[in-house]
Amino acid sequence: MVAFCSVDNLCKYLRTVDLGDLLVDLSSALEQTFTRWSEFQLIPRIASHSTYGVIELMPTQNNQRYAFKYVNGHPINTKVGKQTVVAFGVIADVETGYPVFISEMTVLTALRTAATAALATKWLADPELLSKPIALIGAGAQAEFQAVAHSALFGATDFNVHDTDPDAVKKLQRNLAGLDLNVNAFDSSSGAVSEAGVITTCTADKRNAIVLHNDDIVLSHHINALGGDCPGKTELDPTLAGRCDIYVELEAQTRIEGEIQQLDEATEVTELWRLISGEHQRSDDAELTLFDSVGFAIEDFVVLNFMYERLAKTSFISDIDLLAEPSDPKDLFGFVYGGGSRV
Amino acid sequence: MVAFCSVDNLCKYLRTVDLGDLLVDLSSALEQTFTRWSEFQLIPRIASHSTYGVIELMPTQNNQRYAFKYVNGHPINTKVGKQTVVAFGVIADVETGYPVFISEMTVLTALRTAATAALATKWLADPELLSKPIALIGAGAQAEFQAVAHSALFGATDFNVHDTDPDAVKKLQRNLAGLDLNVNAFDSSSGAVSEAGVITTCTADKRNAIVLHNDDIVLSHHINALGGDCPGKTELDPTLAGRCDIYVELEAQTRIEGEIQQLDEATEVTELWRLISGEHQRSDDAELTLFDSVGFAIEDFVVLNFMYERLAKTSFISDIDLLAEPSDPKDLFGFVYGGGSRV
Repeated sequence: MVAFCSVDNLCKYLRTVDLGDLLVDLSSALEQTFTRWSEFQLIPRIASHSTYGVIELMPTQNNQRYAFKYVNGHPINTKVGKQTVVAFGVIADVETGYPVFISEMTVLTALRTAATAALATKWLADPELLSKPIALIGAGAQAEFQAVAHSALFGATDFNVHDTDPDAVKKLQRNLAGLDLNVNAFDSSSGAVSEAGVITTCTADKRNAIVLHNDDIVLSHHINALGGDCPGKTELDPTLAGRCDIYVELEAQTRIEGEIQQLDEATEVTELWRLISGEHQRSDDAELTLFDSVGFAIEDFVVLNFMYERLAKTSFISDIDLLAEPSDPKDLFGFVYGGGSRV
Repeated sequence: MVAFCSVDNLCKYLRTVDLGDLLVDLSSALEQTFTRWSEFQLIPRIASHSTYGVIELMPTQNNQRYAFKYVNGHPINTKVGKQTVVAFGVIADVETGYPVFISEMTVLTALRTAATAALATKWLADPELLSKPIALIGAGAQAEFQAVAHSALFGATDFNVHDTDPDAVKKLQRNLAGLDLNVNAFDSSSGAVSEAGVITTCTADKRNAIVLHNDDIVLSHHINALGGDCPGKTELDPTLAGRCDIYVELEAQTRIEGEIQQLDEATEVTELWRLISGEHQRSDDAELTLFDSVGFAIEDFVVLNFMYERLAKTSFISDIDLLAEPSDPKDLFGFVYGGGSRV
């Protein structure tokens, strides 16, 4: 039997805990794991492209656990009332090769993306920036989780938000009002960022868009750029990206998928885990830091293991009968036809 | 919701149908798909090795469906009462990227392996060989399925069997007796093959073993070599393999994993689909033909789709709540915390 966390049970569990506390703990788990980066097999995601979209498998493992995420990307789905992205994930035990946990991962991906961005802010943003409002460019599915993570880790209460869709901003205001967080709506990115310290860009447009122009940025900032995460999909003016000290998850993947796909390949970037594990020192005189995030399998590994630790043996987990285990492995036929018996 | 076929439900279903009929139909489905080979994305399996074993993901897709199998290989598992191999699989719809079916695949892999070998026999074995007994070298988990597939497709009733484990042979005799199939036990491979036409080798030893020596083979035969299926794991004397007209699934994969890993890279091999689709003609004067089978993702694709077609909307399928579908995709937060609603 494999432990299973359904969408419904995950939502029920999340409603029993404080989201901010959970994101603090998850960010801490990510931080711990980033210091052990070299334990992991770094496998580029396996993408199957079609005329409709892409389906990806994202595996990684260390000596104890293997995990992979299944995730699609189908922008045309919104036209038929379906999600652009759905995801699920699996943990297996490396010693036996047995899957032990299967979970929805659409919500879990939102949690790990927010916790990872907040972790980058912790390590990259100059402390004085944290007393200013946080700018959110994009008020979509990720926005609330970004706001709560930054509120929980840094006490942020004011969010200066710009989105081309006014309904999305209203949705964000409504959702954050219940958490005593203030959403100030701006008509432009330049307005939203002018008074802000940390800036998060998280938009869904599938092209080389510019949601943050070079001229928009005149002061010191830390930028978490989350929405430029596949080939042909970026958010920043390349000139602006080129002005920043750039941090990434896995350089080889981000060169193809991140903001830096638009920059010269010789542009220097630093993998975030090197900073966290002490192999790299942040430059004290950097006026602009950029976390060019595209999402990496190790983050999925962490959130899956984090939830499995929390939920195992609770009522939020059910068992699913996914693995055949004949008592005599040589008698699979007898197992199927009743001569054998289950382990 | 995703349709789910559990181990228990798959076994229950299989007990309601004739296994021979099912393997005939599955072999036919494989044959049809092999004629459309060029429709598929050919992606080498993604293997994550550890000191304990290997965990693999095997994806492929055509324009309609995507499928992948998760499968491990942990020979040491038998020491702790666990299976060497467990597997599960998923079908997704290429147009939306949504998973639609998840199933156990330990049993399904046995079915597709037997149906694929019988398909190779159909296309490669000289008809006069089919009137002779069939030799099975190895009486393990795959043996019954091989026997039933060859019985159903070719009317075979006599199986000359050798296995170093006498209990495995007794198990095979017991299981096949109920199907009116005769198992003749032999102390050696040479004895088992001497009167046989088609030979199937299917052993589990994880090394470059020789279960069929060059001197064992003096007449015409078709050989399905199934147990040499990963680097360092082979069954045939390389000299014997070199005497055969060799057919494979996907050449690039079999060069690494099959019997031909022991042969010069210049050794000519033919992908079986080319024969089935009419691109290649079988040589009439071949005394020995070899299907050097290692298993390929397209076979898993076929058996998953075959079972999904049969089981969808039956009581053998349950739904699992694996995919979050907020009614407003931009309001994932509201979906989790109850402000939004399910689609």
